[in-house]
This record gives sequence, structure tokens and C-alpha cells, in this order.
Amino acid sequence: MRDLLKLAVDPEIISLAGGLPAGETLPVQAFSTCLDEVLARDGAASLQYSPPYAPLRAWIAEHMRSRGVACSPDQVFITNGAQQGLAILSTMLLDPGDPAAIEAIAFTGIQQVTAGRGADVRAVAIDPAMGADMHALEVAFQREPRPKLAVLVPNFHNPLSATMPASARKTAAELAARYQVPLIEDDPYGMLRFEGDPLPPIKAYDQAGWVFYLGSFSKMFAPGVRLGWIIAPENMISKITVVRESMDLETSTLIQRAVHEFIQRGHLETHLADMNALHKERRDRLLAALESEFTSDESWTRPQGGLFVWLTLAEGLDAWKLFEAAVAKKVAYIPGAAFAVEGGHENCLRLSFGNVLTERIETGVARLAEAVREGALAG
Amino acid sequence: MRDLLKLAVDPEIISLAGGLPAGETLPVQAFSTCLDEVLARDGAASLQYSPPYAPLRAWIAEHMRSRGVACSPDQVFITNGAQQGLAILSTMLLDPGDPAAIEAIAFTGIQQVTAGRGADVRAVAIDPAMGADMHALEVAFQREPRPKLAVLVPNFHNPLSATMPASARKTAAELAARYQVPLIEDDPYGMLRFEGDPLPPIKAYDQAGWVFYLGSFSKMFAPGVRLGWIIAPENMISKITVVRESMDLETSTLIQRAVHEFIQRGHLETHLADMNALHKERRDRLLAALESEFTSDESWTRPQGGLFVWLTLAEGLDAWKLFEAAVAKKVAYIPGAAFAVEGGHENCLRLSFGNVLTERIETGVARLAEAVREGALAG
Repeated sequence: MRDLLKLAVDPEIISLAGGLPAGETLPVQAFSTCLDEVLARDGAASLQYSPPYAPLRAWIAEHMRSRGVACSPDQVFITNGAQQGLAILSTMLLDPGDPAAIEAIAFTGIQQVTAGRGADVRAVAIDPAMGADMHALEVAFQREPRPKLAVLVPNFHNPLSATMPASARKTAAELAARYQVPLIEDDPYGMLRFEGDPLPPIKAYDQAGWVFYLGSFSKMFAPGVRLGWIIAPENMISKITVVRESMDLETSTLIQRAVHEFIQRGHLETHLADMNALHKERRDRLLAALESEFTSDESWTRPQGGLFVWLTLAEGLDAWKLFEAAVAKKVAYIPGAAFAVEGGHENCLRLSFGNVLTERIETGVARLAEAVREGALAG
Repeated sequence: MRDLLKLAVDPEIISLAGGLPAGETLPVQAFSTCLDEVLARDGAASLQYSPPYAPLRAWIAEHMRSRGVACSPDQVFITNGAQQGLAILSTMLLDPGDPAAIEAIAFTGIQQVTAGRGADVRAVAIDPAMGADMHALEVAFQREPRPKLAVLVPNFHNPLSATMPASARKTAAELAARYQVPLIEDDPYGMLRFEGDPLPPIKAYDQAGWVFYLGSFSKMFAPGVRLGWIIAPENMISKITVVRESMDLETSTLIQRAVHEFIQRGHLETHLADMNALHKERRDRLLAALESEFTSDESWTRPQGGLFVWLTLAEGLDAWKLFEAAVAKKVAYIPGAAFAVEGGHENCLRLSFGNVLTERIETGVARLAEAVREGALAG
């Protein structure tokens, strides 16, 4: 996949591959001002070792409360992004050989911290639109020994774009409590909704404290800041701190302060509005292009947010095999099989609309459709 | 120790506890300018996901070559600091139960990635001035099964301030090769020399590729940037990349670019000169105060760089027990037992001179000496 992403930087290629938010709306100038302000105001303190920045923890707690999660600043642990949250919690909760329940189609970072750590992975069936199947999740939880960890991505799932309905979120929290399985809610895309009403996080339904919520500024603000958070029971924060210190001590206090300054100045809301509007425009273009280029042999998801569309080609086609032809035609994507925990899904692929120039989307999809048609003839 | 450091932020307390470089010389304004420059020049690219910043890797390779290490940019892996290097390499090389050789007095972060990961730790005798004993290292390497990993801190060791002579560095590299033990050279303090001639890293003597070098900008530039590097054989970089991606994906490209800009503008050399001059002044004051307050019952190291002095009190005194009295007198330090891999060293303590106001050092040491004298009488 790393090699795929390398291809995607060739400017000739229309890349629908990388999972990047729109570069055009990244608030470069505003953030520059915030960095200056923090360095001028806090001086050396902004460049020293430092405990987690309390005002940022307070804002995150408030943000979570506004989304329906009962949460105090003492439950907020600052990370370098959601992946670090996954790494910390899997280190704490999972030993090699332990069972872990993850979605059958999952971001590679989730596979790395479970299967990659020697876990006995139970793949939970997932619908490309509706997300993880709650019956399948219960079956995975019932089997003895019970999973030591489960991971769900409730919003605009990578790569499917699946979004769990409220009822499933409630059920997921209840199942975690009933079977006493620590459930990680990995939510980097929750604030990237450009259509429809936001849904409460799974954590909002968590009465018994079995749900860990992972947030990230990577998509809602900028990947380059490397900043995110864990919401955990207050009595687990010190254990989380010890595990995290062994990994890389702490998160840059300069970045924490500058992102907090950015939020305090009201830039985050403006940025989210601008970015999501552009993402919507691109999603519209992508769906229209798919509609015009493909037939009933293909199907795809219609996300109300996030960065991805999941495209399923006719049975028998292989998106890895098509990849070379597609790149020769100067279009790139990620083959779906890269995300398939138990194999299969060779005829699927992930298209990302976040950071592709809007006016190139039609051409990109036309090139892709051509590669697919030629592949179907050749097959 | 975290609780100790909390005490150390009370402004009434003269803290000789935290391992921070001098705050006064942190180049706040210059770095602000570099951040602005990078954001203005590179725009959104400086806030997106991004591969490791090639110009920074090139500079690091050149820096290592200037210190006697044959090294190409393809051997440089960017991290969030030396602790992340330790975490990555221990994850790669060490399974629970595997033997690991570390210095008998070691920074807690080294203990966390070895003993803390379930390794069978072999403590290597270490002299407070001369560093790890090469005979003891060979004994640890000879025992079957051989260690899967060894860690040495050659320069201004935390907490001892020990600095290995060139002959021991050469021996260490040879032993690693002879016994085929991957040897991590953890060197956050190497550029903090304010006196005497710099010595080549252990890596400079590494013919066979068994030495991994860990560098860090935390002390040579600023802890708040969270930036460091691994020098590894080129053919291991892709494996290191996979392990690191599972931890937190990547290092902030904005920080990488801004630190590189800082270096390009010549600020790093100026900064190091300023910081080391201030550290030397503080070391001088600290040694003079120890000389005037203590007697032949106590002994201490006389570092030519770094941040620490290791103070050994009379046998029978316990630096943990003295701590409360010391804090009541408004002075703080770290009890040496916190670093003792196999226990003992209760009568030792670490004094850090990096970030204490020069004019408070005499008073701090006088308070400490008073606490020690009272403790000796009470004992």
C-alpha cells in the first residue's frame, strides 16, 4: 500500500487512492498565526517537556459532551492521533493469542494492532452502508474465551463509508457491557459529515464504562499536526499514561497549544464548514461520474460524509490485477482486498474523493471505467 | 516519578529534578519564524500526511558523517524522539521472555521497553563516570540464550552523567558483532558537550551493522518538537516503517520541515553554543556548591556535558525517605533508586542542572545538604 501511495504523488495520475482531506481548505495562514501567538505568549514553556495541555483537554471534554457523551477533562488522554490510541489500548488490553473482534473490512492500522500483535482475530460481518452487524458482533462476543478487545468504526468507515444507525450504536454499547468486552470506538471521521443529521457516538450509550472513544484532529483539522485523544474511564488514565510514556513520552505541547488557540479563535468551525462543503461537492461529482460510467454490474456506497466511496465491480474482476492498467491510464485507487481481514473482496476498491481536484474527478472515473471494461473483456 | 515532577512545578521549589534543558536559551522567536516560513512556502503540504522529509533525512546523514558514522539518508528513519526509537526497536527485536542487556542504572524509559515488555533483563555493571563495564557486557552477551537486544547510553548518561571512553565504544561495537547482539546506542545527550573533546559514537566503530543509533532533537534543540531519528541498516528501514506505522503512522511533517529550516538558517549551531554555555555555568555552580556543602562522606560525578550530576550520600541514607524533608525545605531531585534496575542505590540521587536558575543553585544545594544532615542525625 505504501508503494501504491508513492505512485499517487505522480502529478499526472488522478489519485483516488490516499485517504487525505482536501488540501485546499487546510487553514495554513490561520494556523501560522496561532503558532506565532502561542510561542510569543507561552515562550519556552511551549517548547519544553510539559504535561498534557489542560485547556485542550477541557475543550475536548466539552466537545464530547456536545455530542452526547458524559465526559470530564480527567477522562481525556491526549495522543498523536487515533492510531496511537489503538496502539496504546491494544498494548494494554491484548496479549498475543488473545481473541479480538474487528470488522471484516478494516483499515490496515486496525489489523496491525490486532492480528499484527498476534491476536486471534474474529472478523465481524459488516455492511458497506450500515456498518458492523450487531448479531455477528454478539456471536463474536459470546464465544469463549471472550474477546479482550473489539474495534468498531461507526462513522464514514474507512474504506466502506459505512455509518452505523443509532440503534446499532446503542446495541454495541450494551453488548460490550453485557459481555464485558472493552470496545474501542475509532472515530476519525465523525466531524466530516456534510449531509444528514449527526448521530451520537457509541460512547454516548455507554453506561458501564466499557467503551473507549478515539478522536483525531487529523481529518477534522489537519493530518500534519499528529493530534488526537482517548476518552477512557478516569481510573484508567494513569495506566494509559504509563503505556504511552514507554512509546514516545508525550505529545508536542506546542502543537497542543496551537490547535487549542486555533479552536479558541473560532477557526475550527469555519474550517469544518469549508472542508465539508468541498468534500460534498467532490462526493457529488464522484457519484455522478460513477452513475454515468458504470452500469448495474457495479455498485457503490453513497456516503453522507467522510472521504470514501466503496466500489464493487462484477464478480470475477480483481482490483489488484486491474491496478497496473489503471495506473497506465493515470488513475489510482486502493484495491479493496487490502482491507479484507479474511481475504476475498478482490472485486472491490476504495475511491477517495477528499483530496482530488474536483474538475479531475470525471476524467479519473472515466479512466477507471475504461480499465475495468478492458479488464472484463480480457478476463 | 510523575508525582515528583508535579511537585517540581511549584515555583517555590528549587527543582533539580526534571531532565529539561535550559529554557532560557530555547530559540522561541527563531523557531516561530521557521514555522511561518515553512507554512508560507509549502502551504497545505506542510499540514498533510507526508512521507519522511527527505531534506531532513539528508541533513541527519550528513550530521552523523561529521561525527564519524558512515551513513546515507536511506539509513535514516525519522521518529518522535529517542524513546520512540527504543519502542520501535524493542517491538521488532524482543519478545516477552527474551533476554535483554541494559545498564544496571538506566533511564526508566529503557526499563519500560525491556523489563516492561516482559524481557529477562541482564543488568550490566556501570561506572558513574566511565559508563558500562565492557567485561560485564561480554559476560551478559556470552550467556545462552544470547540477548536479543542491548542498550547503552554512551554520552552524559541519564542519570549518572557517565561517558564511555573511545576504547569502550570500540569494544562495545565489536562485542555486538562477535556475539550477534543488536546493540542500541541511545544518544540524546551527545551534542550537549560543553567541555572536552567529542568522542565518536559507538556506531562509528560498527563494521558489521549490529549497532542501531538513536538521536533526538529533544535536548539538542527543544523537547516540545518531539523529533528524533534511528540510524539502521538500509534493509531494515521498511520493517521499521511498518512497526512505526502501527504505533502512530508518522511524524508531523510541519515539525520536520520547520526544524530543517531552523538548521538551514544556521540557528542550530548558535543554539547549541548558547545552551551549552549556560549548562556549563550551571554545572560549575552546582559542583562548587556541592564542594562547599558536602564532605568526604559524599561523592558526585563531574560531567563535561549533559544535564545531570549523580550524588552518592553516605551508606545507610535513603534518598526516598529524605525526599519529603527536602521538599519541605523547597528543593527537589530524583532518588537514584528509581533508576536502579536491580534495586539498591537508595543513598544516591540525580541532580539536574539544565533548567534551574543559575542564581538559585547554591540555595538549592544548601537546602539539600541541610535535609541530608538532618536525615543523617535522625538515622
